[in-house]
Amino acid sequence: MSRTLDLTIDLINRKSVTPEDAGCQDMMANILKPLGFEIEDLSFADTKNIWARKGTEAPVFCFAGHTDVVPSGPEQNWQTPPFKATEKDGYIHGRGAADMKGSLAAMLVATENFVKANPQHKGSIAFLITSDEEGPFINGTTKVIDTLEARNEKITWCLVGEPSSTDLVGDIVKNGRRGSLTGDLLVKGIQGHVAYPHLARNPIHESTLALAELANTQWDKGNDSFPATSFQISNINGGTGAGNVIPGELKICFNFRFSTEVTDQQLITRTLQVLDAHKLDYDIDWTFNGQPFLTDSGKLVEATQQAIKGCTGRETVLSTAGGTSDGRFIAPTGAQVIELGPVNATIHKIDECVKIDDLDTLADIYQDILQRLLA
Amino acid sequence: MSRTLDLTIDLINRKSVTPEDAGCQDMMANILKPLGFEIEDLSFADTKNIWARKGTEAPVFCFAGHTDVVPSGPEQNWQTPPFKATEKDGYIHGRGAADMKGSLAAMLVATENFVKANPQHKGSIAFLITSDEEGPFINGTTKVIDTLEARNEKITWCLVGEPSSTDLVGDIVKNGRRGSLTGDLLVKGIQGHVAYPHLARNPIHESTLALAELANTQWDKGNDSFPATSFQISNINGGTGAGNVIPGELKICFNFRFSTEVTDQQLITRTLQVLDAHKLDYDIDWTFNGQPFLTDSGKLVEATQQAIKGCTGRETVLSTAGGTSDGRFIAPTGAQVIELGPVNATIHKIDECVKIDDLDTLADIYQDILQRLLA
Repeated sequence: MSRTLDLTIDLINRKSVTPEDAGCQDMMANILKPLGFEIEDLSFADTKNIWARKGTEAPVFCFAGHTDVVPSGPEQNWQTPPFKATEKDGYIHGRGAADMKGSLAAMLVATENFVKANPQHKGSIAFLITSDEEGPFINGTTKVIDTLEARNEKITWCLVGEPSSTDLVGDIVKNGRRGSLTGDLLVKGIQGHVAYPHLARNPIHESTLALAELANTQWDKGNDSFPATSFQISNINGGTGAGNVIPGELKICFNFRFSTEVTDQQLITRTLQVLDAHKLDYDIDWTFNGQPFLTDSGKLVEATQQAIKGCTGRETVLSTAGGTSDGRFIAPTGAQVIELGPVNATIHKIDECVKIDDLDTLADIYQDILQRLLA
Repeated sequence: MSRTLDLTIDLINRKSVTPEDAGCQDMMANILKPLGFEIEDLSFADTKNIWARKGTEAPVFCFAGHTDVVPSGPEQNWQTPPFKATEKDGYIHGRGAADMKGSLAAMLVATENFVKANPQHKGSIAFLITSDEEGPFINGTTKVIDTLEARNEKITWCLVGEPSSTDLVGDIVKNGRRGSLTGDLLVKGIQGHVAYPHLARNPIHESTLALAELANTQWDKGNDSFPATSFQISNINGGTGAGNVIPGELKICFNFRFSTEVTDQQLITRTLQVLDAHKLDYDIDWTFNGQPFLTDSGKLVEATQQAIKGCTGRETVLSTAGGTSDGRFIAPTGAQVIELGPVNATIHKIDECVKIDDLDTLADIYQDILQRLLA
């Protein structure tokens, strides 16, 4: 059995549903300490975080990741127990196999091998590991970054182990992410009986054209690195349940995924202009989930492309598509950030799994990146 | 204590929440039998109905009404127990006082007095009483009318005791009602992640312009007897609750209150045209709640206007506004139908009540109508 598979199985068998860590970080620390890492516990509230660093010099290469996993859903729907790693047809099955315990194992093995081969490497190697990436992300990476920033400790290059690959390991690397902004809108009308509409004001009727305008607005055209900003209404709810009552209010939740061509403030301003132009009576709460970030070139991107090409023969594709990741908290410090991990086809799903061969390939790529940057 | 108040109290104290009758109809039958009425039990399933008739000749004057009441809501919110009639400041309080146990008492007293004064009156007097007017109205008036129609037994004039008055008893008489048509619309999209909108189809976005068009359509301009047809969305629900998921479907419930200038079929056709023009993928279920009806002139309207004028000095106003009533099931048989009852300010509300003096006035008016038509 490969060392990477061995460590992946150990991590999967620890039931670390957010914000539980279930000993994963201690296991990782016990491997890193003998290699010369200083382990710093930066836990906050219910969230366990570690910052592990070997070396005191710049540049700092950091592996970033999370030990927590999303819930399994009904365990009886799984072919194998979600929290007992099980080999099957060349894959290892279990919650977190792909997102992202396989990546954590590959990071550890890559580091072990690199440090053994390069005991006098340049700069520093670090691990920023949290147990709250899948949850509210309040006490995780963002707090660790705050701590590092407060003492002016900088990450030069950050590799986040998010499962970026689509079909084959390394085929896609995320070199940025769109921003995310959520609005919770309450449109106010006056409740009444449908037989007496002149005594009521129907917030559903009053909202239709404003929502149509928001849904059909072109917010920008995107750019070379980002698709156009998108607006999506995720939830809409109005009505008492009764068929003869005009409701007094309508609730709408919507989300922007936005490019670097607009700012969150511009999106807020333009949204309010549409709501006001349609004379709606409303309250709105905004939740800002992160600025867009982009690492469009530089040594980290180059080393990653070359390592993937060297280990797999593949020309990787840079992408900023998809959901958010903790990269959004690290990039604003000035770090170059990329995300590279295994195939994401089964993440957050029943029967999550990862190809066993891909785990060793990933460890090889990670080690090769270290080699190119710090050897 | 007046006989009308006495009977009203007796009825309120019987807790006849739909479809319960709680002995109200037996009480009424026991008053009508000695006056020469034949009592026919036309109960169906959980609904108690009686058809009581005195005389075999045409014309047939029919009092129509219901013994059931809507639920009280939280009893502790009432100033007096909802099912224990209580006098207070010239009003009698209790669930059903205005809708419509006061009317039933007035009908009984009017009939007693009229029959005593006119033992050899013309035509027939009838009572059509149900215990399911406030509920699903499946086994109530509609089934009794079916029975009468099957044996070709016709009502000439029908007075429904619904609380038609707004400020003073008799100020408003309903001489028709709008039709009612309900649509339950399911718009189908494709569920997906908000970060990947190109892989989803958002049914909320796709519906906005169609709903705006339906909400802003002028369906007709109404006519002398009816206000313009109105369209109201009562309920709209889409979304999984999660802020990052584009929902796969959107549910919308809407209702038409329509005049005699359009038919239910025309409304259905025009609605489907709008939905199709916007290329929506949808299912729709229609619930037809009744055609509009109108008794714009004739002996019943005349007698009612004159009786109100005679008993109160008021010029009554004919109106077709407001919700539906069982009149919609009786009018299609060819009967002239009007609705006349007490002030409706407190119906279906906490602390429902009726002015005690109005009960006697109402009995006087009812008796005067009988006098004008059958003496």
